[in-house]
Amino acid sequence: MSKKYVYLFAEGNAQMRALLGGKGANLAEMTNLGLPVPYGFTVTTEACTQYYADGKRINDEINAEIFEYLKKLEAQSGKTFGDKNNPLLVSVRSGARASMPGMMDTILNLGLNDEVVEGFAELTQNPRFAYDSYRRFIQMFSDVVMELPKHNFEVIIDEMKAERGIKLDTEFTAEDLKEMIKKFKAYYAEQKGEEFPSDPKVQLIEAVKAVFRSWDNPRAIYYRRMNDIPSDWGTAVNVQMMVFGNMGNDSGTGVAFTRNPATGEKKLFGEFLMNAQGEDVVAGVRTPQTIDQLGEVAPKAYEQFKQVCATLENHYRDMQDMEFTIERGNLFMLQTRNGKRTAAAALQIAVDLVNEGMISKEEAVMQVEPKSLDALLHPQFNAESLKNGKLIATALAASPGAACGKVVFSAADAIEWKNRGEKVVMVRLETSPEDIEGMAASQGILTARGGMTSHAAVVARGMGTCCVSGCGDIRFLSDKSFELNGTVFNEGDYISLDGTTGNIYAGAIQTEPASISGNFATLMGWADEFRRLQVRTNADTPRDAAQAVKFGAQGIGLVRTEHMFFEAEKLKAIREMIVSTTPEQRKAALEKVLPLQQKDFEGIYEAMEGRPVTVRYLDPPLHEFVPTEDEDIRVLAEEMNMKAEDLKAVCDSLHEFNPMMGHRGCRLAVTYPEIAEMQTKAVVGAAINTQKKHPEWNIVPEIMIPLVGDVKELKYVKDIVVKTADALIAEAGVDMKYHVGTMIEIPRAALLADEIAQEAEFFSFGTNDLTQMTFGFSRDDAGKFLDSYYAAKIYEQDPFAKLDQHGVGKLIKMAVSLGKQTRPDIKLGICGEHGGDPASIEFCHNVGLTYVSCSPYRVPIARLAAAQAAIKNK
Amino acid sequence: MSKKYVYLFAEGNAQMRALLGGKGANLAEMTNLGLPVPYGFTVTTEACTQYYADGKRINDEINAEIFEYLKKLEAQSGKTFGDKNNPLLVSVRSGARASMPGMMDTILNLGLNDEVVEGFAELTQNPRFAYDSYRRFIQMFSDVVMELPKHNFEVIIDEMKAERGIKLDTEFTAEDLKEMIKKFKAYYAEQKGEEFPSDPKVQLIEAVKAVFRSWDNPRAIYYRRMNDIPSDWGTAVNVQMMVFGNMGNDSGTGVAFTRNPATGEKKLFGEFLMNAQGEDVVAGVRTPQTIDQLGEVAPKAYEQFKQVCATLENHYRDMQDMEFTIERGNLFMLQTRNGKRTAAAALQIAVDLVNEGMISKEEAVMQVEPKSLDALLHPQFNAESLKNGKLIATALAASPGAACGKVVFSAADAIEWKNRGEKVVMVRLETSPEDIEGMAASQGILTARGGMTSHAAVVARGMGTCCVSGCGDIRFLSDKSFELNGTVFNEGDYISLDGTTGNIYAGAIQTEPASISGNFATLMGWADEFRRLQVRTNADTPRDAAQAVKFGAQGIGLVRTEHMFFEAEKLKAIREMIVSTTPEQRKAALEKVLPLQQKDFEGIYEAMEGRPVTVRYLDPPLHEFVPTEDEDIRVLAEEMNMKAEDLKAVCDSLHEFNPMMGHRGCRLAVTYPEIAEMQTKAVVGAAINTQKKHPEWNIVPEIMIPLVGDVKELKYVKDIVVKTADALIAEAGVDMKYHVGTMIEIPRAALLADEIAQEAEFFSFGTNDLTQMTFGFSRDDAGKFLDSYYAAKIYEQDPFAKLDQHGVGKLIKMAVSLGKQTRPDIKLGICGEHGGDPASIEFCHNVGLTYVSCSPYRVPIARLAAAQAAIKNK
Repeated sequence: MSKKYVYLFAEGNAQMRALLGGKGANLAEMTNLGLPVPYGFTVTTEACTQYYADGKRINDEINAEIFEYLKKLEAQSGKTFGDKNNPLLVSVRSGARASMPGMMDTILNLGLNDEVVEGFAELTQNPRFAYDSYRRFIQMFSDVVMELPKHNFEVIIDEMKAERGIKLDTEFTAEDLKEMIKKFKAYYAEQKGEEFPSDPKVQLIEAVKAVFRSWDNPRAIYYRRMNDIPSDWGTAVNVQMMVFGNMGNDSGTGVAFTRNPATGEKKLFGEFLMNAQGEDVVAGVRTPQTIDQLGEVAPKAYEQFKQVCATLENHYRDMQDMEFTIERGNLFMLQTRNGKRTAAAALQIAVDLVNEGMISKEEAVMQVEPKSLDALLHPQFNAESLKNGKLIATALAASPGAACGKVVFSAADAIEWKNRGEKVVMVRLETSPEDIEGMAASQGILTARGGMTSHAAVVARGMGTCCVSGCGDIRFLSDKSFELNGTVFNEGDYISLDGTTGNIYAGAIQTEPASISGNFATLMGWADEFRRLQVRTNADTPRDAAQAVKFGAQGIGLVRTEHMFFEAEKLKAIREMIVSTTPEQRKAALEKVLPLQQKDFEGIYEAMEGRPVTVRYLDPPLHEFVPTEDEDIRVLAEEMNMKAEDLKAVCDSLHEFNPMMGHRGCRLAVTYPEIAEMQTKAVVGAAINTQKKHPEWNIVPEIMIPLVGDVKELKYVKDIVVKTADALIAEAGVDMKYHVGTMIEIPRAALLADEIAQEAEFFSFGTNDLTQMTFGFSRDDAGKFLDSYYAAKIYEQDPFAKLDQHGVGKLIKMAVSLGKQTRPDIKLGICGEHGGDPASIEFCHNVGLTYVSCSPYRVPIARLAAAQAAIKNK
Repeated sequence: MSKKYVYLFAEGNAQMRALLGGKGANLAEMTNLGLPVPYGFTVTTEACTQYYADGKRINDEINAEIFEYLKKLEAQSGKTFGDKNNPLLVSVRSGARASMPGMMDTILNLGLNDEVVEGFAELTQNPRFAYDSYRRFIQMFSDVVMELPKHNFEVIIDEMKAERGIKLDTEFTAEDLKEMIKKFKAYYAEQKGEEFPSDPKVQLIEAVKAVFRSWDNPRAIYYRRMNDIPSDWGTAVNVQMMVFGNMGNDSGTGVAFTRNPATGEKKLFGEFLMNAQGEDVVAGVRTPQTIDQLGEVAPKAYEQFKQVCATLENHYRDMQDMEFTIERGNLFMLQTRNGKRTAAAALQIAVDLVNEGMISKEEAVMQVEPKSLDALLHPQFNAESLKNGKLIATALAASPGAACGKVVFSAADAIEWKNRGEKVVMVRLETSPEDIEGMAASQGILTARGGMTSHAAVVARGMGTCCVSGCGDIRFLSDKSFELNGTVFNEGDYISLDGTTGNIYAGAIQTEPASISGNFATLMGWADEFRRLQVRTNADTPRDAAQAVKFGAQGIGLVRTEHMFFEAEKLKAIREMIVSTTPEQRKAALEKVLPLQQKDFEGIYEAMEGRPVTVRYLDPPLHEFVPTEDEDIRVLAEEMNMKAEDLKAVCDSLHEFNPMMGHRGCRLAVTYPEIAEMQTKAVVGAAINTQKKHPEWNIVPEIMIPLVGDVKELKYVKDIVVKTADALIAEAGVDMKYHVGTMIEIPRAALLADEIAQEAEFFSFGTNDLTQMTFGFSRDDAGKFLDSYYAAKIYEQDPFAKLDQHGVGKLIKMAVSLGKQTRPDIKLGICGEHGGDPASIEFCHNVGLTYVSCSPYRVPIARLAAAQAAIKNK
């Protein structure tokens, strides 16, 4: 039996979204609800997939079926395609399963040709309207179907205006338009080497093909990648009888939302233009009227429209975004869909709908896009003020939020200026650990070098500070000025950054603080009722920890101890340790670090108020703690009172060919057990002190050994930890428990997780490294070739942003099952960047992890995503 | 029920090797054969393991059992431990499952103290003998059990000799010896702060503990690691009644082999000393006599010994290595074991034993150690000449064989000197691809830098040329001289290298060519009868390919095409390709490479005479083809007629943080499909041309895509290959088949092997990369910390030399099973370094691979190992 590739609107419904696309499914649903929808049919997404499978051609079967349904449409409408006397004109529009900008949009008035237009002119008694429709069709078809630049048609129009001395399109007469059509067609023939297609059937099939083709244009591919849309979904095509909003002053067209998409307010929101086609609204020549004015202009249609809005919102149980046309006083619905909205509106609407009794709490939780919450957690530009912003460049949106301040070029200046009350934005070639204090003093950070995982980006995200990174066009003119796309910024000049879009503006744009309203708390409360996954945070400072607790973190899943070492005094001691040649020297150097590190941990324990805290032991290779440039080495050697050549020899000996696969993680503890010993003293000592101060808390330190690949390796380090911790606890005379666990981030550890679990009391999946090792490419280098992979559709996702559930996920599932085999109650978490990604969180829920851990500003997102995962997979 | 930890010799047998150790099991076996073995018992290897499990102490249970068996020994011997009137004296010797130098050897005469010695003197009627035995015991016990340096006792002896004006130990009187004993004990007490233990039971337990302890000394650990001996095997301890070879001229001691261990000749081989204990033979004060002289000195014992030899060889069905003592005319056997032998002897003996009808062909194949064949495949030093060699230093044994020649310092000189008839050894800081021709012209290569996998090492092994690498002590004095540990070498000076040991000698040592005798061919033929695994070779040149065929390779499993690109003309074109900015430029550059590369392949096809050839497409990152130093870049830019800064920008853009995980393998083909296209033309073009010349062959090119991580990635590259190959085949009008397969070297590919197999017609496991990614450490960097891992007994093997069957092996098994699920007849091979390692080959056999591929000089080893695997796992 052959597949059905075409459906009349009357044959479909809203559930058939996968097959008919969003637009087609909703047109069908509205048709069946008895709403006024112009007749039409939908060519399915499967026809699109088949088109690609057949080598980008519409096969005979599908072709025949389209024309069979065209016949049915003719029957429904009582008009005939290509019939001069009673022509059927149609619109052709794309409609994928998920709304997808970047694809071909709309072709109107299809079915016109030199003959039909004459009949149409007679039929409508409006030659000017008919010829205007025809020239619009030629223009649109040439542009979107045949890819002739629109601009060249505008040039012809402008020339004709100049000849006639007129200013507006509307001043052209029907005769003018006839001449324009001739010129358009001549230009078309000249450019394409063939006549403009006059056969409406050819026009239709070409338009359908153009829609299919547009599914795979670069913008669409990019959009899909950004939004997790599989490339094999395909798009549907909607062919619909034309109705005309430009048939006179009793006609019009508009768009509207059932509620305010910016605020969520329960009030119709939208605009319309009388005597216009959709494209006129977009063109912005005339200013549209607001939707409530429609009551004055077309009261009957307006009453009917309000009725339709209520029906649709009740039916879809969500705020609707609609397109409509009024033809000679009659209302026609051309589209409805769940409306896009700001995060604030999303919360308001979800809470309102629950209060109105329209949806359940579960549905409300499902209705809010977790990622959208991000916008609520950071300052944003004031919308009015933004209109005056001068966009200079766009670079990587490294850390969200808006920032405005005066340009400074060093961490020291940032601190000094801030102390005297200035707001500053720090601009750097790139940042390094020494800049952290300056970064904290800045409203935002702009770097010329470095990607989404550069030092600046990672640290800024952790701090919740706006950051735009990797702006390669920045040209430093001096220590105190730079030029960017022609604009020169000197120290003290205002600059504004949008870390959510990567936009860089000259001048000051006002920002508004994050507004976590009551709705936010309400929805989060509901989410917490449904989720099973715990949400922890990755935090290295008391400040981050406290912020995360405010956002609802239930503990810390990852304290990266290395970040603590970059503070001047500790860095000095760490460097002394590195140049040590005996274990005794090393111990002496570490003794200096111990009290400082212990104080860090005490601060974190205080901030977490008894919640669990997982501390990961030193992870990065030691060369990260020493300089690389000869001059820096010379200065440091002087400071350290040693010969520059000796220090250089040490630095050189730390060089690695593949640092990612080098001497790091627990390998450091195996070669230098003193480090693990010192860190254990610091963690357990801090826990004992804090517990003494707060007897009501029950602190159970969780110690996490990174980069383990073998159970013996873990046991070796664990033995050091246990020996040190037990001695300390006995000495303090307290009764304190602690857990020792490991990261699962090396494929071998995942493969042998049953053995690892003999020693590990918990696993935390380090999916950053696990992804690198499983794919065999490093995050720092993959950028050079991943674009080719996206283009070739080999990978559709950045596996570092979105967990590769197929490959890496297989290893994780294996490790979970092997780990539980050995230790049924093993605690399982994830602390890679994926811990804050909604799709990855759903995976974590499904494989049975205990918690996800993410940066503080992602905690609310994770809470919501965890709730959605639980509801979806109930 | 408690475990039995001690066995009388009479209770054991040769099959109990794991429990009793080799020595103990064979003593038991000889006892049960009725041979004259002094009574004794064995403390098991499990007691050793328990000793470590109990925190290095002998628990009460085992302690009691030892003394229970001591009682039994007293009953058997009719003597009593510590009894002055009829004392039982014992020897205590270690004995592991596998023979293991580096462990504690022997303590003789245990049971003596101040009292017992007096009785012993009376009993033997030989006070001098008794006191000499006692002082030897004190010396041995202090040294090996209590770790007091032997040397200090020698000092005491020398002082006494000086006082008395005597020269030889034998000149001491009994009274002298008594005084010596006092001095020994005084020294002992002073050093240890306690008296020398006079209680024989304490002596015994301390000696047993010392044996257990010695299992874990650094030399033993090192030896185990080198020889794949697990650390949890433990050692047994043999306690045996003393017999004395030093009781007069009718007593003696000796060692002998049933056949000549150097040549395999069927003739008793060994030596003995009359009136001596074992240590005297080793000390070399008197020259031992050859075994056939024993007939004259002790005819009765000799006859009996010959009888014993025949019995033992017949019983063990292998050449035996024995220790014996004659006490007052009576023969006692103290040890027998299968004798170590040279590779040549091993072959001779195996073939002889088959011819004698003593063993089967299968047993003969099992008897030869595959690794030992290596020695037969390369030149060796003449044994006589070697005695005059002056050993200067030892560095890494990078490529086996011996070499002797005049020192040259550049590839150009090596070629020039060779052309005028000189034999040369090339000495370099390190080698690079441009040196290849010079390396081929040299007898051997010596480098100051670089490890076992450095360029010099890898290329030399491939060529079968001797190489010693990483000799860090070399100090270059000028372009034409260097100093090494005090010896200066100028150009033209003779130097000799042993690539099997890493030894470097000053002066000329004669070498002897490899002698692949008839026995070699015979045994290989037998091996081929039994093995199931095919053996292929890794070869990049016709020369290597031809060599491998001579060694029995059944095909090529890996042609590394990148090595071909380093030849001047090709390198030039490759560099042009790298600096190209458009696909057209890239194609033009590759067009220049095509005919050259096709010629390379034609040469290889010719050499392989129709055998299968698997070509791997370009694998290394492109930066390997461009210089890194500014000066080199400047020169190259001039050559290439471009600006130095532009070339530098290209080189810089190729920099990677982790090149091992960077833009390489099929990632190059995804970004630059032109490369895969060119390589396909070269491979298929070469196959077509060669097939035309040799219609009797049936060439089926095998094209291997490296570093695949996803089936879509493979398909993308395969599509390019298929399109290009099919066009070429059609154009040539021939009927040629070809296969496209992939390396499995990325963990993700192994995990998703069922999907990969949809496109891959064969898998070849690239275990080098797979090991790196699975462990998460790079081969180039792991050296820095692996020693700590060996010391901590976390890893006992270098996973790059010996396949990690546990972790990496689990991935391989998974991939094999998933691959077969999709494609039951999929061809499976391995082409990493592990393909030439016998233990890894056994694993490959067991998981069901089709073939292993290794360097040409490893082919015979692999053939034998494959046969042994098949026989063992029948």
